[in-house]
Amino acid sequence: QSSVTVYGRVDLSVAQQADAVKNNEVRNGSGSRLGFRGTEDLGDGLKAVFQIEHRFNADDGTQSKAAFWDGKAIVGLEGGFGRITLGREDNPAYALSQLVADPWGTDTVASNSSIVNGRIGTNRYSNGVNYRFSASGFTFGAQVAEADGNTPASGVAEKRPYSLGGAWTNGPIVLGVGYENPADEDDYWATINGSYNFGVVKVGAFFGTGRNGSDQKARSYLVSATAPIGQGELRASYGELKNTTADVINDRQFSLGYHYALSKRTTIYADVTHEGRDNVPDNLKTTGYDIGIKHNF
Amino acid sequence: QSSVTVYGRVDLSVAQQADAVKNNEVRNGSGSRLGFRGTEDLGDGLKAVFQIEHRFNADDGTQSKAAFWDGKAIVGLEGGFGRITLGREDNPAYALSQLVADPWGTDTVASNSSIVNGRIGTNRYSNGVNYRFSASGFTFGAQVAEADGNTPASGVAEKRPYSLGGAWTNGPIVLGVGYENPADEDDYWATINGSYNFGVVKVGAFFGTGRNGSDQKARSYLVSATAPIGQGELRASYGELKNTTADVINDRQFSLGYHYALSKRTTIYADVTHEGRDNVPDNLKTTGYDIGIKHNF
Amino acid sequence: QSSVTVYGRVDLSVAQQADAVKNNEVRNGSGSRLGFRGTEDLGDGLKAVFQIEHRFNADDGTQSKAAFWDGKAIVGLEGGFGRITLGREDNPAYALSQLVADPWGTDTVASNSSIVNGRIGTNRYSNGVNYRFSASGFTFGAQVAEADGNTPASGVAEKRPYSLGGAWTNGPIVLGVGYENPADEDDYWATINGSYNFGVVKVGAFFGTGRNGSDQKARSYLVSATAPIGQGELRASYGELKNTTADVINDRQFSLGYHYALSKRTTIYADVTHEGRDNVPDNLKTTGYDIGIKHNF
Repeated sequence: QSSVTVYGRVDLSVAQQADAVKNNEVRNGSGSRLGFRGTEDLGDGLKAVFQIEHRFNADDGTQSKAAFWDGKAIVGLEGGFGRITLGREDNPAYALSQLVADPWGTDTVASNSSIVNGRIGTNRYSNGVNYRFSASGFTFGAQVAEADGNTPASGVAEKRPYSLGGAWTNGPIVLGVGYENPADEDDYWATINGSYNFGVVKVGAFFGTGRNGSDQKARSYLVSATAPIGQGELRASYGELKNTTADVINDRQFSLGYHYALSKRTTIYADVTHEGRDNVPDNLKTTGYDIGIKHNF
Repeated sequence: QSSVTVYGRVDLSVAQQADAVKNNEVRNGSGSRLGFRGTEDLGDGLKAVFQIEHRFNADDGTQSKAAFWDGKAIVGLEGGFGRITLGREDNPAYALSQLVADPWGTDTVASNSSIVNGRIGTNRYSNGVNYRFSASGFTFGAQVAEADGNTPASGVAEKRPYSLGGAWTNGPIVLGVGYENPADEDDYWATINGSYNFGVVKVGAFFGTGRNGSDQKARSYLVSATAPIGQGELRASYGELKNTTADVINDRQFSLGYHYALSKRTTIYADVTHEGRDNVPDNLKTTGYDIGIKHNF
Repeated sequence: QSSVTVYGRVDLSVAQQADAVKNNEVRNGSGSRLGFRGTEDLGDGLKAVFQIEHRFNADDGTQSKAAFWDGKAIVGLEGGFGRITLGREDNPAYALSQLVADPWGTDTVASNSSIVNGRIGTNRYSNGVNYRFSASGFTFGAQVAEADGNTPASGVAEKRPYSLGGAWTNGPIVLGVGYENPADEDDYWATINGSYNFGVVKVGAFFGTGRNGSDQKARSYLVSATAPIGQGELRASYGELKNTTADVINDRQFSLGYHYALSKRTTIYADVTHEGRDNVPDNLKTTGYDIGIKHNF
């Protein structure tokens, strides 16, 4: 019986990014990854867990970030009390609310990443103590990390970052909330999201509000719809991120895509997105597209 | 059923390089590697494929190049139409002609690397769209990549690099051709190779011609012979690379080696090579050797 | 039958280091690692062996050192003659004496690393030729490497480093000796260690002597006791490292810890250590502690 599971993903597309110069290119559709994880049964309902996840750019073979195990690096215990881990981990505000609100899960050219994180939040934190509890459709997560190694957008870490997240699923209903407080003294990002699945279509809405490291207020919303069509899923979203202090639309994006499952592990997809933020320079494309393939292993 | 195969190689020798200062050392015989690959059957003859391959220097544990997955990073589909992948991949001119022509496969101190690539070609390109078709002993490959991330020897990428390769095998006969056009506007490298296997000995010949990024013409040839002896293979080659514009021999090399298979996966080898190019500085060794072990897993 | 074994460790604690500013933090308890190793039976008692081991900081997901495969990168043969490998490997003075003498194996905040290596030795060398022989409770190891890539503490590699180590186990008795000669012309580090296992408690002693790259003499000793208590082990040690040329105590450390095995693969632990060296700056904590979890897979 093996004590380690090897898993991963390679995801590449031919694409033109929106809000970018002309760059018809081979593009990383989402974070290609290679991971190792395992669970050890310690008896009495107690388990030891670990997971390390490398992220890479499959287009040129480079690692995605300075940290090789950018995706995850944790060890901990799981039991009736929940799950407590140490290390580099998704923050629960991202995992339970921001990520869930975007039909693209912040992947592909259609990613609503900056709308759901307000250009304030960060997907993961290093040096964290992480807690997660799930029961009866309800999930709660909390994380506190070190200022060290978690530099916020403002460039200076002033305090320990921390995050809270909650999610509730009941039949067709999904609700989520997140509160993320990066290492800068001023910034925070709070979000709420919900969706209702009518069967033929699932509709969702998201709202975020916060303050960046320059003490400017930000607000964002996103509405979305996804519909199963054949073996695939049609996705649509519209949203914007506004810096309300400066009264500037930082991101206004309409996205449409179709993701077709060749199997449970392999998807081909096509997306188109239109960028309509304030002050787009003339040399940037306002429309982006991609045609790609995502393979999980 | 596992969806991923872990494979690799560690290859080290005790060696003195030719055309180098005295450096009796532990040397990387070939590209030590660790790879992950898989094939998923999608039905109707269609398959999803992925492969990522890390290259490292086993002598000191460092990664070989700036890109961790220097060896390969691809995802794609395979079927009756052939195989189409995106990502970082061998160029077909290298894989189907240049590589095949060298009895050492461009490995060890005896490598004929600069003769078969003319100091113009590159083994792999990033950001590529790659096509491969095989049938009845015939293989065809094509690749087009981005100028971005594929800086040619001249240092400035001026256009998309592309490559073509073909190979034909029929009983004792192997023929190959390659055409590689790096990202510099001026350079290209065209090659042809063939071999005939008489059983007791296989003889081969190679010819290459092209132009480098400084618009100077280059020409090379290589003749080789390999003979099965016991559980091993005796290898010999002689060839040269000439810059015909400058009328300078850039490489003239005679190599001899014996590679003994301890098993299908493990080989021990000894090689000697003599370097006779123009203008070798006095402080460089003209003769190189290695004694090594190559283990595939 | 698989030809490769995937193994590893993730080890993290919540800790305050001794001899450091206040830094209550998530800390790497020992070298978290991911390794790949295999043995191939070649018949007649001969085996091919390989092993590559990556070391990483699980707290933030970064690799530990500049070399990705910092822990190990070797290939070689094993038989009645012993085991000979090429590549990056533990030096036998560390593996057979220094490491063994420390009840913490140079891990956690309680690590006696600088006492057992005298701030002269190094755990591993790159570009090495490594020999190991074991029989009847006796183990002998030798390593010679290249000056290249093995820069000593003095910053300038002047010669090939080499190391010797020996260990002898007989019932309750363990004895070990090590001699390590780094790449600096002046430095060396010689050690001897022994322990006797009374069952209820195992007591050990270590003595080291040598010279650093600045031609200053160093001397160290360590006494230790470990006792099995329940599913765990109580550990205690006291030792010091002295620069006898400068007459300065570089390290004087008392450590106490309890390591409790949740299973054969998972340990939780708590340690406390007190630093009493000469000239500790006022802003540094003299007492360190950790509470951690170590999971092997």
